[in-house]
Amino acid sequence: MAKMRAAVFVAPGRIVLDEKPIPDPGPNDALVRVTTTTICGTDVHILKGEYPVARGLTVGHEPVGVIEKLGSAVQGYREGQRVIAGAITPSGHSAACLCGCSSQDGAGTRHGFKAIGGWKFGNTIDGCQADYVLVPDAMANLSPIPDSLTDEQVLMCPDIMSTGFSGAERGGIRIGDTVVVFALGPIGLSAVAGAKLMGATTIIGVDTVPARLAAAKRLGADHAVDFKSVDPVEEVMRLTDGRGVDVAIEALGTQATFASALRCVRPGGTLSSLGVYSTDLTIPLGAFAAGLGDVSIVTTLCPGGKERMRRLMEVVASGRADLGALVTHRFPLDRIEEAYDLFAHQRDGVLKVAITP
Amino acid sequence: MAKMRAAVFVAPGRIVLDEKPIPDPGPNDALVRVTTTTICGTDVHILKGEYPVARGLTVGHEPVGVIEKLGSAVQGYREGQRVIAGAITPSGHSAACLCGCSSQDGAGTRHGFKAIGGWKFGNTIDGCQADYVLVPDAMANLSPIPDSLTDEQVLMCPDIMSTGFSGAERGGIRIGDTVVVFALGPIGLSAVAGAKLMGATTIIGVDTVPARLAAAKRLGADHAVDFKSVDPVEEVMRLTDGRGVDVAIEALGTQATFASALRCVRPGGTLSSLGVYSTDLTIPLGAFAAGLGDVSIVTTLCPGGKERMRRLMEVVASGRADLGALVTHRFPLDRIEEAYDLFAHQRDGVLKVAITP
Amino acid sequence: MAKMRAAVFVAPGRIVLDEKPIPDPGPNDALVRVTTTTICGTDVHILKGEYPVARGLTVGHEPVGVIEKLGSAVQGYREGQRVIAGAITPSGHSAACLCGCSSQDGAGTRHGFKAIGGWKFGNTIDGCQADYVLVPDAMANLSPIPDSLTDEQVLMCPDIMSTGFSGAERGGIRIGDTVVVFALGPIGLSAVAGAKLMGATTIIGVDTVPARLAAAKRLGADHAVDFKSVDPVEEVMRLTDGRGVDVAIEALGTQATFASALRCVRPGGTLSSLGVYSTDLTIPLGAFAAGLGDVSIVTTLCPGGKERMRRLMEVVASGRADLGALVTHRFPLDRIEEAYDLFAHQRDGVLKVAITP
Amino acid sequence: MAKMRAAVFVAPGRIVLDEKPIPDPGPNDALVRVTTTTICGTDVHILKGEYPVARGLTVGHEPVGVIEKLGSAVQGYREGQRVIAGAITPSGHSAACLCGCSSQDGAGTRHGFKAIGGWKFGNTIDGCQADYVLVPDAMANLSPIPDSLTDEQVLMCPDIMSTGFSGAERGGIRIGDTVVVFALGPIGLSAVAGAKLMGATTIIGVDTVPARLAAAKRLGADHAVDFKSVDPVEEVMRLTDGRGVDVAIEALGTQATFASALRCVRPGGTLSSLGVYSTDLTIPLGAFAAGLGDVSIVTTLCPGGKERMRRLMEVVASGRADLGALVTHRFPLDRIEEAYDLFAHQRDGVLKVAITP
Repeated sequence: MAKMRAAVFVAPGRIVLDEKPIPDPGPNDALVRVTTTTICGTDVHILKGEYPVARGLTVGHEPVGVIEKLGSAVQGYREGQRVIAGAITPSGHSAACLCGCSSQDGAGTRHGFKAIGGWKFGNTIDGCQADYVLVPDAMANLSPIPDSLTDEQVLMCPDIMSTGFSGAERGGIRIGDTVVVFALGPIGLSAVAGAKLMGATTIIGVDTVPARLAAAKRLGADHAVDFKSVDPVEEVMRLTDGRGVDVAIEALGTQATFASALRCVRPGGTLSSLGVYSTDLTIPLGAFAAGLGDVSIVTTLCPGGKERMRRLMEVVASGRADLGALVTHRFPLDRIEEAYDLFAHQRDGVLKVAITP
Repeated sequence: MAKMRAAVFVAPGRIVLDEKPIPDPGPNDALVRVTTTTICGTDVHILKGEYPVARGLTVGHEPVGVIEKLGSAVQGYREGQRVIAGAITPSGHSAACLCGCSSQDGAGTRHGFKAIGGWKFGNTIDGCQADYVLVPDAMANLSPIPDSLTDEQVLMCPDIMSTGFSGAERGGIRIGDTVVVFALGPIGLSAVAGAKLMGATTIIGVDTVPARLAAAKRLGADHAVDFKSVDPVEEVMRLTDGRGVDVAIEALGTQATFASALRCVRPGGTLSSLGVYSTDLTIPLGAFAAGLGDVSIVTTLCPGGKERMRRLMEVVASGRADLGALVTHRFPLDRIEEAYDLFAHQRDGVLKVAITP
Repeated sequence: MAKMRAAVFVAPGRIVLDEKPIPDPGPNDALVRVTTTTICGTDVHILKGEYPVARGLTVGHEPVGVIEKLGSAVQGYREGQRVIAGAITPSGHSAACLCGCSSQDGAGTRHGFKAIGGWKFGNTIDGCQADYVLVPDAMANLSPIPDSLTDEQVLMCPDIMSTGFSGAERGGIRIGDTVVVFALGPIGLSAVAGAKLMGATTIIGVDTVPARLAAAKRLGADHAVDFKSVDPVEEVMRLTDGRGVDVAIEALGTQATFASALRCVRPGGTLSSLGVYSTDLTIPLGAFAAGLGDVSIVTTLCPGGKERMRRLMEVVASGRADLGALVTHRFPLDRIEEAYDLFAHQRDGVLKVAITP
Repeated sequence: MAKMRAAVFVAPGRIVLDEKPIPDPGPNDALVRVTTTTICGTDVHILKGEYPVARGLTVGHEPVGVIEKLGSAVQGYREGQRVIAGAITPSGHSAACLCGCSSQDGAGTRHGFKAIGGWKFGNTIDGCQADYVLVPDAMANLSPIPDSLTDEQVLMCPDIMSTGFSGAERGGIRIGDTVVVFALGPIGLSAVAGAKLMGATTIIGVDTVPARLAAAKRLGADHAVDFKSVDPVEEVMRLTDGRGVDVAIEALGTQATFASALRCVRPGGTLSSLGVYSTDLTIPLGAFAAGLGDVSIVTTLCPGGKERMRRLMEVVASGRADLGALVTHRFPLDRIEEAYDLFAHQRDGVLKVAITP
């Protein structure tokens, strides 16, 4: 049986490059040869043991590649075709999929029932930081890459763009809205771009790293607020003449950013939360208007599926937003452990790394 | 100047019947002679000093009456006409009104900006537990009562039905949904009726008072769960085969009901909160799926305005839901202090009282 | 190879009971032994040659049955299980499915692109007026029948309830709405029930057959209007005090009902069209307010998929609406040609027939 | 009584500059001194007698000016303040306003009930092609102009931007959508800008005038199609690989553009119609998929009200779209008859004229 290289979770603190057999596709799967992938903040949570996955699992959920072999029941594709798949791979046939919530498709559990189940790569099945990855429900998930786009140009589609944009989409941003985005890592920067794409006319980015604040302005932020220089909630109120924002997007996953975001929301407005939290959260009574403010708090797991990927690649191809510029470092798969080290410690101004098997 | 009787907030613990001048309507106001009104749980918060209002303010926000005098600029009504006005009286001309959030119209403040401002009666202006009440922005707020309906039949429209139904509406209930309602006071019972009206096919009511559980079943609940007999979250999971509910409605305003409601929500579902909270709230990490469950938390302040009132009276007139049956006790205005005492202590199985000046 | 009986389209005017081989399921299919099915108005269009299908095709798209054999890749079901499938059988993996429009999945074409493709049974693949039917994409489409429900109780779910309710759903009916339904055949009656389920408080049914008008009143209509006795548009205006309706539902597919329905719609309201038309349609300028009335015209193809079916069976199980009562006649499969004759000529007060292989 | 100049409809073919008394504001009105206004295509319909208004009425519905005098009940403004008001001036207090359809507020009738009633200026009350205009329901309609913006920069807000953008908004455009706009006059060009603002990634403009095709490309169109060179429906199908568009916007008001737009719409997509039609319309059966295509046809009357105006001025101030560039010609009020002549005959590449009293 042919072998391949794969970045495998071994124990908290240890993701190592190992050898595994190249898997064989079932009837509805596709085997994809990975040409480019990346490391996500969630992978760092896995590395640190903060988000538990099975030992021996291949990590990574952002695949760009070429179809190597199609399952016997897969139609509409051909071997050799360049494709991406989303970080979330809906089956298409679950009840969740069929009622419009395809990210919640699948196998995870919450209180004994299913949650986050659409996230399979590097979570419940082998991921794509490897030479090959098996894509489940291939007909729902493989999206051909337009010839005009490079691997790196579409590398942000599977997760960063899909998640960041969903923060804007679930917030229901309308033309003329005022939006604040708390935390300007790759997801927050993508949320800034998404807010601009949807017609927000005042976009406020909050962070403290100068390079991130500058990137936010390039991607559409009208104001970049350094939370170490000013109280960000007060600054948002000042910038909005006391009205507050229509939509606040949380893109970090901490109590502080969650509470600040809520404090910025106008009555009738929405807090759209993208962060992955690791503790219970507190809703401040005042910011919640004692429950009487017509405020909404919404959360979103990165939308997946081939149609989502097609649309995101259209955004890239049309030049409407350029998130490919987030790739600051490049490594071959052989040096992925080094890439993890750089990314986990946020050294050298890293935003995203490209990994090429 | 002619005088009238009015129930006035004097100090925490003291709402007394006093005398005040009958007010004169400004150009856009209407003076309404109150024929029936009621006491709300919120009034009890005011009585106890838990929700601050100005001393000397007339309380009460649920007016049924007859137009006594119209402001000089008010058109489309006639004196002597039977009318109701909502607990919330939107101006129609605020930015909040014009962007679809009329309950947040007005004068209250949150972090220096406006919140809950649509609630004026018995909050920021004199209310309707009196012989007369001045209705602001009369053309937006006065809704004629169909001849076929009695005062008591429409007495639940201004607040109870509007708030309770909004819990179902903001939850986005669809045909075939499963819904749980936590706490079955008048608002919760109205939420049960609203959930049924919108097509929920499994409605679970949670409380512990037998009369309330029985009332819930009459109004549309398929299951009545006594939280003292069973763990309500476990029971909801059992009743839904582990799927959880599409929409959970919180109708009390406590941490316990908020957290339990969230725990019942399926991935992709909605917690629709109606309660008035008095403390910060905690969101349990697991019930929130660490922010990845596509869950929404929405809050609503009672929708007002004459069109809302017309529609709610249509619900009554069509026989689709009978909330008038919630009136368990009746008092003349002279005995309103006695009515407060009964209602505040929830004696004698009281659900709602009718007060007749 | 084992044989089965099947009602086959032979030529315009001729659907006959013939013999065919029992098909063998592919990896994602299921073979279902049909226990009950019915004839749809669309089947009559096929019979008359008004809607073209391939000669030799088995007709029928409303299957109730028992799983006989599962494809090799199908999981989550067992042979012997009682199931239904919707008239529309989405694949789950098409772009249409993944962007929320699963009925348009598939193989039909309009101007060279895909339309109505979700409708496969008796249209593009063999249907279910037969001893056995092959259900494609079984995991997306098979919905287990609760033990408490009989075949006849769920027989309206695959098409009649799903289509009729979708008229109410796509119309966006809200609590307190006024709704008119034009034409009270099975689909229109189901639309009446759907409007009631969603909280419409004034429902007006328009037809001329006394039994249908009476059935509408039983299912929730407040007013039954005989268009041969009064002008239905004038009567709707009279019943609504000149306001018009929030939502008008067209359930026949003719120019006359389309135009009348549009004339009843208030400014800002919606015409929700369910009919299958056979000619170009004319929009009257006045009823369209010259394009300035904020009016919407929406169309819907019967939603399918297992989750839709589960929800419709919940409606039946909860007793919220009883469409099973529409079955007025029963025939064994052997006598299906006789059933077509009765149904196509609308003899003997027929609403729906049950066919039992 | 002081006099002012006003462009008055005298008879079909004749709008003349005349003298009228300067009106006095009622309690809820404001008198605005007009500093800049413009002529709309609708005014040309009035000129030609195609849209009937009362003889002697002052025409024009796009006012930019300065508050001269406030009604006695108007609060929150000061005399001397620079303001705009929308072409549509909702009262705020009508049932239509209170149920989210404020453009349909008011006095027009359709089948004996109200339609298009929100359009008052130059339709049912004196308009703004005059030295002064009386703004009704001033608190709902006056929107202060930011100091940084000139009159011409905000001149497109009252109608052109509000209408054009509403075509995109009512179409429900999402990130990644493909959109076609039929007819690239000022409204169509604004619809192009609106589609871009909402995240459409492929925008196709259809017209035949080279200057308009070029303007469309500057405002966001990816493709400019000359319908005299190619069949526009075929070209749209070619550009979309046969998929059709998610949203087609009709911006002219003719049968030909309506039918072509519908033919471009994908199954499940939307035709968003902005045109003012003057004849009945025909819906082609095929383009309508016989009623089974899940297609929507929506119409919109220009949204008004001060909050809408504030948001549109934000679009201008933020530089997100520059519609001010549509002003190609300028005239003093004295020469307005000359301006009508130029504009009605579309001479000299005119797009919009600025009129300065």
